[in-house]
Parts: sequence; structure tokens; C-alpha cells
Amino acid sequence: MTDDQKRVVAEMLRTGPLDLGGDVHEQRRVLVEMFTAFPLPDDVVATPDRLGGVEVVSVEIAGVSTDDVVVYLHGGAYALGTAASSVGLVGDLARRAGVRGVTVDYRLAPESPYPAALDDAVAVYEALLESTDPRRIAFVGESAGGGLVLATLVALRARDVPMPAAAAVFSPWADLTLSGGTIDTRAGVDPALTATGLRTRATDYVGSSDASDPLLSPVHADLTGLPPLLVQAGSNEILLDDAIRVAAAAARADVEISMQITPGVPHVFQAFAAILDEGAAALDAAGEFLRAHLDRA
Amino acid sequence: MTDDQKRVVAEMLRTGPLDLGGDVHEQRRVLVEMFTAFPLPDDVVATPDRLGGVEVVSVEIAGVSTDDVVVYLHGGAYALGTAASSVGLVGDLARRAGVRGVTVDYRLAPESPYPAALDDAVAVYEALLESTDPRRIAFVGESAGGGLVLATLVALRARDVPMPAAAAVFSPWADLTLSGGTIDTRAGVDPALTATGLRTRATDYVGSSDASDPLLSPVHADLTGLPPLLVQAGSNEILLDDAIRVAAAAARADVEISMQITPGVPHVFQAFAAILDEGAAALDAAGEFLRAHLDRA
Repeated sequence: MTDDQKRVVAEMLRTGPLDLGGDVHEQRRVLVEMFTAFPLPDDVVATPDRLGGVEVVSVEIAGVSTDDVVVYLHGGAYALGTAASSVGLVGDLARRAGVRGVTVDYRLAPESPYPAALDDAVAVYEALLESTDPRRIAFVGESAGGGLVLATLVALRARDVPMPAAAAVFSPWADLTLSGGTIDTRAGVDPALTATGLRTRATDYVGSSDASDPLLSPVHADLTGLPPLLVQAGSNEILLDDAIRVAAAAARADVEISMQITPGVPHVFQAFAAILDEGAAALDAAGEFLRAHLDRA
Repeated sequence: MTDDQKRVVAEMLRTGPLDLGGDVHEQRRVLVEMFTAFPLPDDVVATPDRLGGVEVVSVEIAGVSTDDVVVYLHGGAYALGTAASSVGLVGDLARRAGVRGVTVDYRLAPESPYPAALDDAVAVYEALLESTDPRRIAFVGESAGGGLVLATLVALRARDVPMPAAAAVFSPWADLTLSGGTIDTRAGVDPALTATGLRTRATDYVGSSDASDPLLSPVHADLTGLPPLLVQAGSNEILLDDAIRVAAAAARADVEISMQITPGVPHVFQAFAAILDEGAAALDAAGEFLRAHLDRA
């Protein structure tokens, strides 16, 4: 059963119109269409808002009252994606974790290279802290948003800002130098990403900075002091080694770390939870992880 | 609270009489005393038995009827430890996982070097298969027993023997060449193990073989085809990199893998579940993992 599901998802990605390294305006439209292909459940309430001067979308499940918040950083290689197009996935997660979501419209490259996205993520968290106990906040991000979650935590810690309760990253892009071995070894089975596409977008975001800077490539960061961390990835993705190296770096930095690798599924397979059992199971596990750490508050 | 618990456990290990590389007969006695220091709960029933010509101890929780079996491979650097002295930990796990345990008295080095332990583990599993669906069997092992679980699975797969439902390894010793970076970087915080001690015992077990053989050091094995795998370790152990590298190798071989690293706790901290919250939590997670995979049968 799920082998069929895996084939369908891989085929959708392989034959789909997304070309990560293509014209940024065209690809922004394509990504939004992909991410909004599944209809939203009726009980997901999305409300545009601002926090710390940054546009966000607040995502709540109707009838669920909660003080726990997930700050969500969407994917799209720092150049594509919007808070609005992440509402489906954020809603899926909010339901499972028993939280409300705040998904962030951080500025995108190439118009706004590093550190614009990082500054926006930091600003949203610091604004949220004015009204919310950090033990009631978790960060979640996917792909570039996963790398950005890690960079944000490292930046916050360097400034002695209180850490949130936990963080979860799905298929994090955490190495903008693309030095992971799976960039090559998984190229044949990754239906979604190419090194060429990532390289184009890395150049856009890095701008005049150094791609190996820990705040751009947190695989190189000292992760000491980060809160409990969940890392999920599929084995059919060229960024598999980013997930592995983040988990290893966290473990060696005394961070409480759980890494879950699901075989035979692509980059950010959680986004296909509606049609892929492995995606739903991973979101269930992420929801359980977030609940466990937010409940300690 | 748990910081105090961590200090007590580390102090017990640091000042305790275990000297892994010391006289093997003396140290066997010491290890058994350590492992039987906590009284067994009244409802743990341990029964000596034989399977495939190998001595084992069957561990059941009184009043719990189950067809699911965990084959348990104890630790002790291939030279120390007994099935009987593992009954406490196996009982703790059996209770949480809803299984019965079969803990194996595999032959020990230096009297019986490689492949004696491996042959015994294979023989027990194959004998169990005569009466039990492999989907109702899981392997669990700690330290050297964790490495031995991995080697056993690789050996079984090479012989086309059906895989069990799952495997869990606690602080696996999976590299008898001691090439992991944490052998040095964690030496100052590891209260239980030393490279010198491990090197002595590796020499005993390796005998005339090559320590880098994948069946001796499964960090070097192709893990393709292994069942879902849980890897747990503490961050205060020189074998941390063995856990990380096993998880990475499994992920790259398309194995369903979950790695859980708990900060600030030592080698096989699960054995201290009675006095260490992190140990109990890790056993809970292992029990949940085993239930989930055995329930699919």
C-alpha cells in the first residue's frame, strides 16, 4: 500500500513543474500552487498578522484553545515560499501538537539576502517573548526553514535570549556549501531537488557573505545550549547528510536530540501527509515530540 | 532533580570497582555485582533454558501473556557479563514493551574469540524461528551486545534468513578499531569506559581476525535490508560516535532509523532506570518503539 503511495508522490515531484533553480518569479508561483494543492480542512483558521514588524500568518484549529505556540519557518531555498502557502502543513502540525502556529513571511532572496531572513525570524521570536513564556514556544521549520530554525537558535543563544522549549526541523537545508556526501550519492533517487538548483538559490541568499558561516550553514555551528531537537528526513533526498550532520553536531554538543529517518521518501515528505502514510506518521511523531516538551512548561 | 541523579550515577561509575581492561575473571565478578545491585521486582520470572544449543535465560513478567519476544544480547565488551546479570534490565524492557525476553549467554572472549558470540546469537535466533514468526521477534542489545545485534542482523541477512520486526541498540560498541572522534573528545566526561580498557577487550575478541571486519565493527557494514532500528546513547560516553555512525550508516542504507541521544548521561544509562529519570524515559521510548513494530505482526 504505502509503496504505491511513495511511487505516486515521487512521480508527482519528478514530473511536476517545480524547477528550484529556475526564474525566481515563475518558481514562486509554482511552489505556492504545489503547496496549496490539497484543500485546507474547514477548521483551520488562518489570520494575517504582524509580529516584531514582520508579516506572519497565525494558524489556529477552530475550537482548540492553547497557550502553546509553534513559530514556523517555511521552505523554498530562501527564495520561494510564503507563510500563506505553508498554512496546510502548519495546520496539520498544530492539530497534532495541540498548538497554534505563527508562520513567518521572512524576507526572501535574491531581493533580500542573508541576514534578512535570520533577522526576521529573530524579530518574530523576540516580539512573541513579550507576551509568551519561552517554555510555551517551539520552533519548527522545513528545508531552508529548518536550516533557518537552527541559525535562529544559534543567533538567539549568542545574544543570551531565552531558548524556546524545543525545535523540530524537517529535511533541513543546513549546509549552503553543499558538501554532504548524499548530494551525489542520492542524486539518482531524489525526485525533488538538484544540486544545481540548490547552488543557484544558495548564491542568491549568501550574497556577499561566506556560505560556510555557521549562521548560513549551521552544520558548522556549535549547537551547545540549544533546546531539545527533533530532526526528520527521508532517505531519498540529496540533503539526507544535512540531517545526519545536524543530529551528530547536536549530539556532540550535549543537545537532547532525536533523529528520525524514513526510508524511500523524498524531501519534506511530511507535506504529503494527506496521501502518504509515512508523512502522517512523521507528523504524528513531531506532534508528540512538541507536546512532550511544551507540556513541561 | 535529575541533575542530582546524573551526578550520583556518574559518581557510582567513576568510583566503582569496574576496570574494563583488568583481569577478566575478577572483572566478570565485579560486573555481575554491579548489574545485580538493584533488587529484581517480584513479578520478574527468570528461567534458564537452551535454544539452538546455547544457554539462555527466559524473562517473563508474571501474569503477562505475549507471543512477542525480544532476543537480548548483554554488554560487557565481549568478555564480561552474563544472561543472568542482564535479567533486571531485560525485565524493565519486557514490562514496557509487552514482550518476553530471551537473554543469551553467548560465549565470551578471550576463551572464545570471534565468531563464537556471533555464531551463538545466530543459532538462538534460528532456533526461535522454528516456533515463532519473525514479525514477532525483535533484537535488543547493549554496548558490545548492541554491536553484536547489528553484526547478527548483517550475518542473517547475508544468509537470507528472514529479518525480525525491529532492533534496538543501547550505546552500541560498533567499532572495535576505536576510530570514533569521541574516543578522545569524550574521555574527560565518560565515567565508565576508557579507550585502554576497550582496546584490551577488543584484542581478546578479535583474536586472529581483522578488527575492521564489518561483522566485528558494524560501523563499516552495509546495513541495507535491516529492519527498523532504534539507536540510543548518552552524550557522556566515548562510544557516542559509534551510535552516531551506526545511525548514519543505517540512514544511508535506507533503513528506518531513529536515533535518540540523551545529554549528560553515561554509557548504557538505561541500566540506571530505577534511579535516573533519563534512563526510565529512554526505556519507555524503547518499549514504545518495540510495541509499535511488533504490533504490525
